[in-house]
This record gives sequence, structure tokens and C-alpha cells, in this order.
Amino acid sequence: MAKSVNSRKPTYAFLGPVGTFTELALAQVKNAKNANHLPVSTVSEAIDAVINGSAFRAIVPVENSIEGGVSATLDALANTTDIRIYGEYLVPITFNLVARPGTKLADVKVISTHPTAFAQCRGWLQENIPSHSHLPATSTAAAALDLLTDSPLADAAIAAKSITDHYKLTVLAKNIGDNKNAQTRFIEIGLNAKPTKASGKDKTSVIVELPEDRPGALLEMLEQFAARGVNLSRIESRPIGDQLGRYRFNIDAQGHINDDAMAEALMGLHRFSPKVTFLGSYPRADKKNSKHEGNNSNKEFSSAESWLNKLRAGR
Amino acid sequence: MAKSVNSRKPTYAFLGPVGTFTELALAQVKNAKNANHLPVSTVSEAIDAVINGSAFRAIVPVENSIEGGVSATLDALANTTDIRIYGEYLVPITFNLVARPGTKLADVKVISTHPTAFAQCRGWLQENIPSHSHLPATSTAAAALDLLTDSPLADAAIAAKSITDHYKLTVLAKNIGDNKNAQTRFIEIGLNAKPTKASGKDKTSVIVELPEDRPGALLEMLEQFAARGVNLSRIESRPIGDQLGRYRFNIDAQGHINDDAMAEALMGLHRFSPKVTFLGSYPRADKKNSKHEGNNSNKEFSSAESWLNKLRAGR
Amino acid sequence: MAKSVNSRKPTYAFLGPVGTFTELALAQVKNAKNANHLPVSTVSEAIDAVINGSAFRAIVPVENSIEGGVSATLDALANTTDIRIYGEYLVPITFNLVARPGTKLADVKVISTHPTAFAQCRGWLQENIPSHSHLPATSTAAAALDLLTDSPLADAAIAAKSITDHYKLTVLAKNIGDNKNAQTRFIEIGLNAKPTKASGKDKTSVIVELPEDRPGALLEMLEQFAARGVNLSRIESRPIGDQLGRYRFNIDAQGHINDDAMAEALMGLHRFSPKVTFLGSYPRADKKNSKHEGNNSNKEFSSAESWLNKLRAGR
Amino acid sequence: MAKSVNSRKPTYAFLGPVGTFTELALAQVKNAKNANHLPVSTVSEAIDAVINGSAFRAIVPVENSIEGGVSATLDALANTTDIRIYGEYLVPITFNLVARPGTKLADVKVISTHPTAFAQCRGWLQENIPSHSHLPATSTAAAALDLLTDSPLADAAIAAKSITDHYKLTVLAKNIGDNKNAQTRFIEIGLNAKPTKASGKDKTSVIVELPEDRPGALLEMLEQFAARGVNLSRIESRPIGDQLGRYRFNIDAQGHINDDAMAEALMGLHRFSPKVTFLGSYPRADKKNSKHEGNNSNKEFSSAESWLNKLRAGR
Repeated sequence: MAKSVNSRKPTYAFLGPVGTFTELALAQVKNAKNANHLPVSTVSEAIDAVINGSAFRAIVPVENSIEGGVSATLDALANTTDIRIYGEYLVPITFNLVARPGTKLADVKVISTHPTAFAQCRGWLQENIPSHSHLPATSTAAAALDLLTDSPLADAAIAAKSITDHYKLTVLAKNIGDNKNAQTRFIEIGLNAKPTKASGKDKTSVIVELPEDRPGALLEMLEQFAARGVNLSRIESRPIGDQLGRYRFNIDAQGHINDDAMAEALMGLHRFSPKVTFLGSYPRADKKNSKHEGNNSNKEFSSAESWLNKLRAGR
Repeated sequence: MAKSVNSRKPTYAFLGPVGTFTELALAQVKNAKNANHLPVSTVSEAIDAVINGSAFRAIVPVENSIEGGVSATLDALANTTDIRIYGEYLVPITFNLVARPGTKLADVKVISTHPTAFAQCRGWLQENIPSHSHLPATSTAAAALDLLTDSPLADAAIAAKSITDHYKLTVLAKNIGDNKNAQTRFIEIGLNAKPTKASGKDKTSVIVELPEDRPGALLEMLEQFAARGVNLSRIESRPIGDQLGRYRFNIDAQGHINDDAMAEALMGLHRFSPKVTFLGSYPRADKKNSKHEGNNSNKEFSSAESWLNKLRAGR
Repeated sequence: MAKSVNSRKPTYAFLGPVGTFTELALAQVKNAKNANHLPVSTVSEAIDAVINGSAFRAIVPVENSIEGGVSATLDALANTTDIRIYGEYLVPITFNLVARPGTKLADVKVISTHPTAFAQCRGWLQENIPSHSHLPATSTAAAALDLLTDSPLADAAIAAKSITDHYKLTVLAKNIGDNKNAQTRFIEIGLNAKPTKASGKDKTSVIVELPEDRPGALLEMLEQFAARGVNLSRIESRPIGDQLGRYRFNIDAQGHINDDAMAEALMGLHRFSPKVTFLGSYPRADKKNSKHEGNNSNKEFSSAESWLNKLRAGR
Repeated sequence: MAKSVNSRKPTYAFLGPVGTFTELALAQVKNAKNANHLPVSTVSEAIDAVINGSAFRAIVPVENSIEGGVSATLDALANTTDIRIYGEYLVPITFNLVARPGTKLADVKVISTHPTAFAQCRGWLQENIPSHSHLPATSTAAAALDLLTDSPLADAAIAAKSITDHYKLTVLAKNIGDNKNAQTRFIEIGLNAKPTKASGKDKTSVIVELPEDRPGALLEMLEQFAARGVNLSRIESRPIGDQLGRYRFNIDAQGHINDDAMAEALMGLHRFSPKVTFLGSYPRADKKNSKHEGNNSNKEFSSAESWLNKLRAGR
């Protein structure tokens, strides 16, 4: 359950209810430790909470999500200019099968969970409960919570292993996901503000549209990064939505907007692309170095600028 | 309801039940006209049906899907080598709000539908039924079908407009999606076989992994296409899943594997990439020309080969 | 003959003596009209004259030269850091066969000229004076001048058509060059100083060494220009000379060092390359526009910078 | 002096007379050991000798030449389609100052040599014989030979150190070139025939014109090599000559036309370029490996082709 709101503390919205994977991401956010936690149902609500001020920050899934994530988040971010990313967090995806105390595995026929979670446990279910049926829920936690109502619709739920920290439920089977290494990446979003300081282990996210459908435009766009030694860690096309065949690219690049190399790459994109949305520069979850390839450190940028100025002055 | 299976006719699996958007895609498949139609619940089931022979072909969503699509399909295709794509179909996404005859809009409190469909009608719902609650369903059609049970859990459902061709339901509101141009792209998959003949209006789909995490690998991969004048119509990164930060790229390129330019690009990818999965060459849904850029027609390839052979022979 | 030196006027060195093609280039230099003209024998002497102050500027051939040019000039420029280019001039190469008054074509056996000029008239000579022999000279003008000595070594000389403006010689045959469109490009060099103002019709010359012998280094270097929309009008590799297989590239690019796009490209080269020599920004001889490709005008650079600054400030 | 022609042996033309640097290159040609040697005066004559059959092969300078070379050779090769390159040879450029026996250094006033050789010894001359004058010759050997005539025009000559193998001349000073590492590259040319077999240490030379003056055309051309892992060892632009600003590129690439990677790159160029001239595949003078970058061996090409054929067949 969300702690009661204390108006002197900041509020962090998250895809709730308690017990979701998003809450596990929230638990990693340092500044959220003693803050108010506000569960919301959709990514849009989370963004709205930030925009209308009812939350200072929101935690939403962005990649390989179980709770409603990826496209919803990417598309919502593409359609607002008021939101920036301030951090990212990785949550291992571990599913448990839970039920009301007293239930035995042999009794389980109807299983409730979010459709995506269901899909990710299909192997285990077919082997262990071949004759189950699926009752979809809006989140893994909602499925678990429903078990505790007076007339539960399902016999068991698939939920994050943290669910039993919140509810009196029994674990019938542990770690039943088909992919034991599954992870979800979550981001912390807030209103536009100065990016957190460059740490040398940073990531910058942008959304870039390509100029008309000219062949080679994607290559040209990538060269804006390559020419300044900026490495990409992710690129994903998403339909723009106005007409078929037009895509925008969600890009995570290594480095910080305050790095000279990244700044020049971003300005290059701004000239090249009909629309670039800067989503933020923030510390990498994996804490790896974000040095630029080649001779593209700030020091080397400064030295090139001094050289240019001397030439322009005729020296 | 699926027609009763006729063993002398081929069977087409589709994400069911009847009344889904996938069924609208199936309706566009010429050879499926007099075939058996087999509704299945998940993309995995559809693929399994093809592999185990219970279906000749299956129709599944692949982009901007409502019924469970994109990632599930892309990832399933990446994990089998027995399946090829034989066609693609575009379905406009038009949502109606439907209810049992006699229901009035003012009576509607609980609305059932697939979570993605729900998300796409959020604008209309907030404006027109601000106090509704959402009951998730495994598909838009399942939500509609439930309305006809003895004790329906919801008052209304959001479903494809074709739903009323199948069920006695009343339309309470038409075309309530927030994006009026929404479309879903479906593919027709079957067991590996010779691709359909090159038509000059073709598309080729591949999944490509990049060699280690070396900077510039994505650029190099794209140059394999560019160097032969092959245009891409879609590129989308998906996590490989074995470890964080490794991606594979789902690519749709213009042209056919029997085109010389495409063949050379594919062989280039095969040398470059640790893993390339060929998903098929098939006619484009938009029927646009798939000519290669520059001088890369089959004729120009032949002429270059004659020239080379002459040089090698010393003439 | 060089005018007597007037110490209150600037001095222009040129590859002499009078009557060479270089003098025709000098005649195109506006500010040299009333200046002192100083004939020198080699490109090195011309450069030395500028460096030691005996000339303000020097005119030397740089491309398709007759009088001793190309490599000598390119290599000399690569080996000094005190010299800049201030202008370029194009001279059509028209050769006449000249002799002492009274000589007839039928009398001509020994022909003197610079070896390169000789090579360029070989077709005409074989057809018209099949049995001639060749006496090499250090310049076309020196060959002509020798005809007027007491005991000339040759019967006729091949020289620029302007030679008869200077010397009492008869034209035996006009325009005898094998390529009627031949042109030589000359440059005006001087000590380092502020480049002439950007005119929108400019050229910038640099010499760039590639970082070690890594594959793709040349492509990467060219992308430094391409990423900023800077077009090249010439690229020529020259051996560095310290060891075999190492080359430096003489590049003429469209635009001016004061253009934002060119400045960024130059700074990119400075970071990328172990050695970049800036040779100057100066007006194009062909007076064509030097706009940068894509959206890379100064205005678009400014607008990108404003955008970046807003983002950095959190707006 | 050339050995008297033996009609049963092949004839090798070379830029003569004996004692030139070209003759030192000829000395490296294995099959020329017992062949007839035919001195000619110009590159054009050498090419003509091959074309009209008076020579089987010819040795001409192609890079950093002293005896008349580079541009003449490159341009001549660009203008014939009957000639191929069969080998390359490197000659260290070592200049000696030679004179008639009895002459002392202090007596030397007039020095004869080829203008390019003169330019390369300028430093030594200024220091050691500051008051010399220069008498140009058509080759270093011609300058030396003239010293032995009845009334020599010069006191000394600058020539290849091998000159004293041929003529009774005294060496006044050894190794007087300003660049002690200077080398000239020579090529062996012959009529079109099957290239020598691939040795794994090969070089391929081509001349490529770019399609119109479109920006990026040079980059696109280089990508034809890069996409197949073919490394370049030299690229040099030369004016086409028909109009100003049009260039063709002389390219030396590592590998052999019988390598799959090189063959595919050449065919790519043939489609891309309005004009490609294949000059030959031949063993590298430096005997270095010419393996292609990436996975572009013949074996990997074969494996990619098998893969493609399986896909096309539907397996």
C-alpha cells in the first residue's frame, strides 16, 4: 500500500499497485527512500502525474516490460516536450506462482496474471499445470491482490517474488519464468530541468525522425554520432503514427549532453532531422564508462578549438 | 466460430477468436477464402500449429498490434528456423464500443477489452465515460464474447468493428480510437519452402545479430544493404535476451531474395554477422515498387559479371 | 623582364622568366597590377622569397602544371607551416611553336621546351615534324629566350602564346597542344595571416595525414566532411616520404574556415588526424557557390546551438 | 647500351638510356634477365612499344618518379584499354654526383640532370656548390652520357649510383639526395592477358570515374571496397581532362581479381561508376599479405553462397 502522502516530501509515482516489478525499480531509487510513493495504473497516468505536479518523479518500464511497458512509454515520451529522464534502473524478472494460504499446486486450475507475464511462463505452465486456464489482469500485482478478495476469480497468480512482502500469500512455485536472465529496464522521469551532472558513466536518450524517406537517411543519421565518436547502446524504430512507413528512432547513446562530443552530435542531429526530442542525460544503470571513441574527449575538443581560433586569427 | 475442419482443404490459423483484428487480416488472404480457419490464443500457438502441421499457414500481428503482437511475434520468429513469411496484410484499426442489445451508453460502467485496445481509446473514454472501470481481456473479441454469457462481467466491450458480423451486439459508439489512422501489420507464416516468385514489389525480412559490441557495427551492417542499393523499410532492435545490451535487428528490406542485389546483400550479411535469420521474401502489402537504388538491377548485375569474366580471361 | 623593384610597392614572386604560364596567372592577380614582379626558378625559391620577405606573395602552379608544378608545390606546402594560400587562378594552356624571325617550319629540327610541355605536344610534333629532336629546358620561356642568344642550341621553342608579347619571335604554329582544353591551376601564397573574408564562393585547402594504416581510415576522414555537409572538390594522395605506403591527402573543400560547418569539420579533422595542415581559405577561381550540403548554413548552426543551450539549462 | 635484339627472346622496353633508375627496376624483373632490353625516351613510347609488339613488356615509373613518371604514366594508362600491369618494383633513389675522370668538386660549376632530380638534391647543392648553375636533361642518364661527348655542356651530372656501372665516370659525391629514404615505384606493363595467379600477396589497380559531381560519390565509391573488406593501399585523384573539376581516381587495392571479395568489389564499381578501367592484378612489391578485412575470404564467400542457395530452394 502506498504510504500516506506527506506534503513536505517529494512524491514518486510508479506503475502500481504495490508488488509490481516497477515497485522493485522504485526501491532502487535513492532519493525515493523516504518519499511518498504513488501507485498509478498506466504509463500515461504516471506522465500526467508528473506534468500536473501530483508527483515529482515517476518510475515507468521502458524495455522488455511485464507491466505494460515499452511502446506505451516510448510513444508517450515522443508526444510530450515537458518530460526528461533522470535515471535508469534494471530489475531482474523473477516470477513466483502464489496463492491463498492452504491452496496446493494440485488445486490450481485458473491462473491470473498480466498477459505478458503469462506468456513468459508458458513453458513452465504447460509442463506443470497442462490444463490451466488464463484470467488476464492489468498487472501481476492486481492478479495477486484479487486472490485475497471475498470471491477470487482465480486459484493462483503469477507475480513478482516481492509480492509476498506485501500480501499474505503462499508461494506454490518459485522462479517459473522461461528465461532465467530476463530483466526489465525502468526509467525515472520528471519535469524538464538541468540534467544531472556528467559522471563519465552516462547515457543520453533522444528520439529522432528521419528527413523524408530518402535512401541512406538512417546511415546519415548514425554518422552524426560516429563522426564524433559517440557510441549507441540502443536503437529502436517506432512508427510515427501519422502515416504508414514513417518511423522515428529511439536512441540511447553513451555520454552526456555536457560532453563536447555529445553536444556536437546532438546539434548535428538538430540540423539533420526534422524533429529531435532530447529525453535526457543520466547515469547508466550498468555503471560502465561512457568515454567517446577516438580522440573525442573534452580536452581534445578544447585543443581543436584553440587550433581553429589561431588559424582564424592568421597565426 | 471457425468453420468445421475439412481435411482436403488447407488450414489457416489466426489469433482468435473470430471478430479479432487478426481475422480481418485473414479475410484479405486470397488462398484462405475457402480454407479451414483455426483460431488460436497466442502467437506461439500459431507458430506451433504451423510447425506440427495442424495448420498450413498462420496469420499473426507483427507491428502496432492490438491482439498481443509485435514483440511476441518477432521473438518467436527469431527462435525458430523452420518458419518463413509468405505475405503481409494491413488492417485499419477501428474500434467500436459494443454491448448487449438494450444497453444504453449511460448504463456503461465496466468496459472490457484487451489492455492495448483500452490504452488506444483512453482519450475518448475519459471524455465520454469519465467514471468507467477497465476489465482486461485476452483479446478484443474475447471481451465482446463475454458480454453474451449468462453473467457478463462487463457492461460493454471495445472491439473491432467487424465483431458485430459475428455476434448479436449493439454498437454504442463508432470509431472511438484516439488515432484515426492506426493500422496493424499482419504476416502470413508457413513452413520453410521456396519463396513466392519475385514480383518487383517485394519485401525481404531478416533478423541480424551484430558481431560483438564493436563501435560502428550497426553502420557496417547497414552498409551491406547500401552498397548494393537495397533500401530498408523498417529496422527495429530487440534484445537478444541472453545478456543485457545485446540486440538483434529485425529488418524489412525492399526487394526479393531472387534479386541479384538482395542476394549479394544477404550473402554480405551472412559473412558479416554471427547470426542472420532469413524470414522470407514476399509481396509488399502496399504494392509499391521495390527497385534497388543506383544501377543495381539484375541486368546491371549480369553486365558487371560479364565484364569481370572478360577481365579474368585476359580480354 | 621583371620591372625594377620599387620598395614602396609589394613584390609578387612567380615562376619565371617572363613569358611563362605562371606569368599569365600573375596577370590575373588584381593587387599585383602595379606591384613589383620577381621571377624565380623553382617553387622552393618562390616559397623562400615569401618566407624571407623578399616577396609579399608568390604565384606557383599547383595542378596540371607545365612549368614544374604539382608535386613540388604540394610537397613544399606540406613541409612549411608559415605559408597560406590567398587565391587561385586558372590559365588555359595554349602552346605555340616559336622561332627567330626568318625561320621556316621546314627548317626546324631541334625543338626546345620544358619536358612536360614537350610531352603535351607530342601528337602534333609526330604528325608535323616527325624527325625533330628535343632539347629540354627549365621552362617554356627559358627555351624561347635561348633562341635569341648568339648561338642558340635549338631551332624553335614551344612556349605559352604570350611569349611573343615579350620577345621578338615568330609564331610558326599556333595552339599545338594535344588537349585543347588543358588548364593549369595556380595559387597565390603568402605568409600566415587572417584569411580573406568569407565570400560564399570559397575554397579551403588542407593536408591531412591518416592515423596509422587502419582500414577504413580514409572513409572516416571523409565522413568528417560529410557529417557537416562539406563538399570536396579535390582529393589527392601524396606519399609522406618517411616510409613507403604512408600517404597524406591534399584536399580542397568547398567553403571557408569562418563558415561554422567548415570550422567544425576542421576541428573534427584535428582530433582525428595525427597531422592536419591548414593551407588557407580563399575565393574560388570558378566563382561558384560554396554552400554546404544539407542544413549546414551558419544560421542553422546557430539555431542548433541555441537549442542545445536551452536543453543544457533544463528548458 | 641495349643488348642487340635477339628475336627468339622477349623484349623489355624501359625508360632509358642505360643507367636510369628505371633500368634498376628492370634489373629486378626475373623474366627480363636474359631478355632483350629496349631503351625508350618516354612513357608513351614505352606503351606504344608494347601495343605495336616491338616489346613484350615495358617498365615505367608510376610513383615519386625521377625519370618523367607519375602523371604521364597514370594518364597514359587511363587512355588505353589494351594494357595491363603485371608487376611492381621498388627502387631506392640514391643520387651520386659524377664527372669525367680528373674533374674535382671544386671545378664544378654547371651541373646537368633531369629537373626532378635536381630539385631533390637542392639542399646538398646549396650547401656544397652554392654557385652552381643547372642544365636540364631528359633523364639522369642522358645528363651523365653528355659528359662523355667531345664538348660536354656541363661539368658534372647527378645520376643514379648505378651510372658508373655503365660509363667511365668518377663519383664526386655519394648519396646527395635530400631525402635518404626516397623510393620510386615502377610497374611492368604488357598487353591484356590473363592476370598472374593469385598469390595471397597481391595488388589490384583500377581507375574509377565518379558518377556526375554528386556530393558523397567518393564516399560511396570507397564503400564498394569497404563493404567487401578490401583495403586500399593508394588513392590518387587525377583530372579527367575534358572539363575542369572532373576527376578520376587511380586506386591500388589489396588482393587479386580472382579473390571473391575483390571480384565483387570490382563488379560493384562497374555498376556504380560511369567508367572503370581495370589495370591488373599482380604480386605486391613489398610481399605483404593481401587478406581481406572481416570475414571475406573465398571460403567465407562460398559458405555464404551455399547458405543463399539453400534459402532460395526453400530449405
